[in-house]
Amino acid sequence: MTSTERLDCDAGPSPYRILREVDLRDYLAGLPKVAGALGGAPDSWSISEVGDGNLNLVFIVKGETGGIAVKQALPYVRLVGESWPLPLSRAHYEYLALTKQARLAPRLVPEVVHHDEVLALTAMELLSPHIIMRKGLIAGTIYPRFVEDITSFMARTLFFTSDLAVTAAEKKEGIKAFAGNHALCKITEDLIFTDPYREAEQNRWTSPWLDKIAASFREDMEAHVAISRLKLKFMSQPEALIHGDLHTGSIMVTESETWVIDPEFAFYGPMAFDVGAIIANLIMAYLASPGHERTSGERRAFEEWLMETIERVWTEFERKFLQLWRTEARGDVYPASLFPGSSGALHLEAERQRNMDQLFRDTVGFAAAKIIRRILGLAHNIDFEWIEDARLRAVCEARSLRLAHIMLTDAKSFANIVAVTKMARGVSAWRPDFAA
Amino acid sequence: MTSTERLDCDAGPSPYRILREVDLRDYLAGLPKVAGALGGAPDSWSISEVGDGNLNLVFIVKGETGGIAVKQALPYVRLVGESWPLPLSRAHYEYLALTKQARLAPRLVPEVVHHDEVLALTAMELLSPHIIMRKGLIAGTIYPRFVEDITSFMARTLFFTSDLAVTAAEKKEGIKAFAGNHALCKITEDLIFTDPYREAEQNRWTSPWLDKIAASFREDMEAHVAISRLKLKFMSQPEALIHGDLHTGSIMVTESETWVIDPEFAFYGPMAFDVGAIIANLIMAYLASPGHERTSGERRAFEEWLMETIERVWTEFERKFLQLWRTEARGDVYPASLFPGSSGALHLEAERQRNMDQLFRDTVGFAAAKIIRRILGLAHNIDFEWIEDARLRAVCEARSLRLAHIMLTDAKSFANIVAVTKMARGVSAWRPDFAA
Repeated sequence: MTSTERLDCDAGPSPYRILREVDLRDYLAGLPKVAGALGGAPDSWSISEVGDGNLNLVFIVKGETGGIAVKQALPYVRLVGESWPLPLSRAHYEYLALTKQARLAPRLVPEVVHHDEVLALTAMELLSPHIIMRKGLIAGTIYPRFVEDITSFMARTLFFTSDLAVTAAEKKEGIKAFAGNHALCKITEDLIFTDPYREAEQNRWTSPWLDKIAASFREDMEAHVAISRLKLKFMSQPEALIHGDLHTGSIMVTESETWVIDPEFAFYGPMAFDVGAIIANLIMAYLASPGHERTSGERRAFEEWLMETIERVWTEFERKFLQLWRTEARGDVYPASLFPGSSGALHLEAERQRNMDQLFRDTVGFAAAKIIRRILGLAHNIDFEWIEDARLRAVCEARSLRLAHIMLTDAKSFANIVAVTKMARGVSAWRPDFAA
Repeated sequence: MTSTERLDCDAGPSPYRILREVDLRDYLAGLPKVAGALGGAPDSWSISEVGDGNLNLVFIVKGETGGIAVKQALPYVRLVGESWPLPLSRAHYEYLALTKQARLAPRLVPEVVHHDEVLALTAMELLSPHIIMRKGLIAGTIYPRFVEDITSFMARTLFFTSDLAVTAAEKKEGIKAFAGNHALCKITEDLIFTDPYREAEQNRWTSPWLDKIAASFREDMEAHVAISRLKLKFMSQPEALIHGDLHTGSIMVTESETWVIDPEFAFYGPMAFDVGAIIANLIMAYLASPGHERTSGERRAFEEWLMETIERVWTEFERKFLQLWRTEARGDVYPASLFPGSSGALHLEAERQRNMDQLFRDTVGFAAAKIIRRILGLAHNIDFEWIEDARLRAVCEARSLRLAHIMLTDAKSFANIVAVTKMARGVSAWRPDFAA
């Protein structure tokens, strides 16, 4: 080893710094593969910071021949500010999850073109003209490919990282690889499973209309037991590598494509947390929809599509997951040698169905938790926030909370997904009396 | 850095080698602290290899002023031979577990005086005149301290490594630290949760008497479903740092002391696996007891003590675990802020009881699994093996299998631990008709 080599080694890579647009231009110009893909001189690239999420910087970079999206983690929660630090390592876990998901669910996750561990930066293919699905739903847009794509994404990423598909050793290695992402898990544990049910400085809701309902959630011990059971599941049931933040703001769509982005909350957790997130966000889109209509009933077809979509998200997810279990179960659980012949096949199929029934109940519970946190907690969503008439917004939110409360405290009473959509239709007709 | 230092560093520690008694003497002589504790000249030390377990070498070393036990992992399963390799890293996990357990359950785990990662070697205080509990039980010895000690060990090691006592981040770090011990978990997954229920070359049982019963376990799909659910729990529910092999051969006793040894199977798994192991081994001691009597009824008082001990192991474990939960719950689950006032206290206490009820059901199931593997699988135990009359041994084993089958396939039917001991008393009077 020469002393020059040692010096290089000691110097290490350049340290983390928050990139401005001009810094990013220089940085990307130094990456031949990326610069080549963008095309043209670096001075000609358009670069704009567009991040509207809660945690990161996001740059759109367009060159003469191509475009990329560049995401850089900030050392604090963007939504709150520097007073709430958050480890940059989440960019590492996001990169791990992105590349793993891309292998398991090809063409449903953007391709990573560059990752810089020290800068906590990941460059991905630019999705254009795709928009954030939540915005499309607010506009009343129907996405015919969505069910097919999202159920493939969930069935494949969850099944193929579960004990059904991998050996116990591989599973434990997976859990280990993501165990360090606990700061992001802690956000979920606090903001979803705890704060909305107690006095917390960061909570907010559409006041004064929801004051009484918010108080009732803080006082309802049955709800506190139910949310605590879900929190324990979230913390202690590493069933599969879950996305961990799979709402409609983490999905980019056109009418013919669906892409899942932003898996920085990824870790080994309960599968139902992802499925519940999708169902919860579709339920909120449905119950917020009346707040976005300009003439009465104009969004009825869209709303019917949402109801049907919720039902098909579960039934298609279940169908695909079961199909994978029947054909690709190479894990160490339920070994084929214990279930020979037609009797073995029958028993194993019954056991599969029983597992899916449990997964459905957990899905109903996690969906409820995701709805409640968006209305009574810190992070709200624009499905409701963009309803300018605050009283109308409160009506939509109160209906959502009424549904979510039943789903949270009595998940077992929902025999199937149609029971959920029926109840959603029911509460959509309810006119809350805020004076009572 | 001087080149000498680099050279030292490059050379690294001496590589792994299997120690003979003479090698161990030289090795220990080079450890001032250990040599000092042993006392006298190294030549005067008595060293004998006494390992009668399945996996390792165990040396007893006695000097003029003190003694130690030295355990060295072999790179293969001792019981089977070099054809079944097993990673030396298990010595690392055993060391981690020993030191963690010693902090959580002082004076119930031997003190480590030296650990050598490369040699996969751990030296511990010598327990003398303690014997392996299983041998004491075969001799019909009553251990008045046992319930108090083993329930403290289990309640404290399980509670203080669970989500009830530590933060989510600490828990994930713990899971990560033990995730690499998967080769040892795999032994359990194969030998306990799979092989006894299928044709496997390594299986054996007391033939011909148990042939039909063994076949019935291989053909019983309800049992295969039940054992597979337990296997999935074992693989995917990291509730706490469990010992992982907590049978009466991993416990050293006198009438006034209890020491838990050999946690090389330790990892984050379901708490009920440890509790079930203790209960299973006491049940086997009870049902094997008639095989060790010289005159009819001479062991009746001992057998009654076993029945009472089984009941008290559960009730005292439950009492201590609940008491810790009420007073030391500093984890992130069931946060106190969600359960204020008398209503909160009532709901939380009901939830604690519900968790213990689930833990009891899991305990019954895991206990059944541990019994069945000792009679139909590879590794048998001397409770049965030392019954020389093979037919009488088969009678004791058949009774154990009859009880275990009900516990495995219908764990929910046991309302409490007395239901288990009652059923054990019931099967102890059963005279199997092997001709039928």
